Amino acid sequence: MRYELYYWSGIQGRGEFVRLALEEAGADYADVARQPGGEAEMMRLMQSDAAVHPSFAPPFLKAGDLVIGQTANILLYLGEQLGLAPRDEAGRLWAHQLQLTIADCVDETHDTHHPIASSLYYEDQRAEARARSADFRRTRMPKYLGYFEKVLARNASGSGHLLGADLSYPDLSLFQLVAGLRYAFPVRMAALASQYPRVAALHDQVAARPRIDAYLASDRRLRFNEHGIFRHYPELDGTD
Amino acid sequence: MRYELYYWSGIQGRGEFVRLALEEAGADYADVARQPGGEAEMMRLMQSDAAVHPSFAPPFLKAGDLVIGQTANILLYLGEQLGLAPRDEAGRLWAHQLQLTIADCVDETHDTHHPIASSLYYEDQRAEARARSADFRRTRMPKYLGYFEKVLARNASGSGHLLGADLSYPDLSLFQLVAGLRYAFPVRMAALASQYPRVAALHDQVAARPRIDAYLASDRRLRFNEHGIFRHYPELDGTD
Repeated sequence: MRYELYYWSGIQGRGEFVRLALEEAGADYADVARQPGGEAEMMRLMQSDAAVHPSFAPPFLKAGDLVIGQTANILLYLGEQLGLAPRDEAGRLWAHQLQLTIADCVDETHDTHHPIASSLYYEDQRAEARARSADFRRTRMPKYLGYFEKVLARNASGSGHLLGADLSYPDLSLFQLVAGLRYAFPVRMAALASQYPRVAALHDQVAARPRIDAYLASDRRLRFNEHGIFRHYPELDGTD
Repeated sequence: MRYELYYWSGIQGRGEFVRLALEEAGADYADVARQPGGEAEMMRLMQSDAAVHPSFAPPFLKAGDLVIGQTANILLYLGEQLGLAPRDEAGRLWAHQLQLTIADCVDETHDTHHPIASSLYYEDQRAEARARSADFRRTRMPKYLGYFEKVLARNASGSGHLLGADLSYPDLSLFQLVAGLRYAFPVRMAALASQYPRVAALHDQVAARPRIDAYLASDRRLRFNEHGIFRHYPELDGTD
């Protein structure tokens, strides 16, 4: 199966969670919008009157006859297809629950720099972004990181993964969340680091996987930048 | 199977999307936190060191040995269990994609009155709430409602449902989203009404289903109020 991923060409964004799964599995895929004319093709597909299952927004994935939208939903599908999720019902649901909780944190991270409107520039909502970021750093980051630390501690397999013995797609997504938070809030993440050793260890374990390591060093991995979800604005960061 | 739903006792909130599915199916369930001592029991379960699959936040559902968190994930499970989702893979994924898009709109609705911090009172972020609500009314509400209108129009079955001929859980959730938006933004929703006739018709079709109709008239249905996701603050509403 050759997969086609459709996502904005200039950012990691939500598409990155899908890319990491495809890369870890060594899947055959095209990152369509990064090819010449690809972003126009993505818009054409999204706006096509012929789309039976139109997506509200990128990313979406073409897999044979299927067109699947919503990041967590794409991973629900790929987890099964690529062997990146447990096969039993309880495990599948638990993996998806963790993914949706990661997605909630990603949404909140986005809103630290866009608390008023996605349609406005950051510069037009900078004061509000400072206020939202202060709360995010103080109350939300510890709550989310503490939650994942607890989940890792309770995984009886001792694998260092979020669930069971094997890697699953939420592990890849938690790696990306940590990498993104470190990029966006380096001062705060340094201050918190000692409290979440299992989260940090999972990040390192994922980064060291041969296919992920090769991917991160390749041109296929876009750099973090100030157009994506995880943006580094020093005025939004702080020790507490 | 007797289900146990755990959610805050005083609000519809995210738990309501689960309640609607249980009610429509005539499922045997307890709304645990609304029973005497129930909210304490919910907190005990959430914070228990013995929880193998702890939830980040309510709602969560006990179903036999399973404990399932995240609203959309609970509906993914119940959709299959209660016959409220297509049986084929493409249909299941499409239903879940729609549910996740509804959930995104629910999150954005919450943030209209809490754009800075959930940990602060509305009164402490009223100016920012006005700004965020203005953008939500102007750009986001038409975008989401227009999307669901398009999805309804493209359902070739002519059933008036979001997908296929039969009712599925995203239909129930879209009903709740529309009801909530009408409560929170009555002026704006009235101004938009004529543009989204299929969305309005789906709302009415769901409300008229015998079990939903009985549920809405019962004490089991909490009223909308200013503690939940959909809050009516007149200063946040407007014709455009």
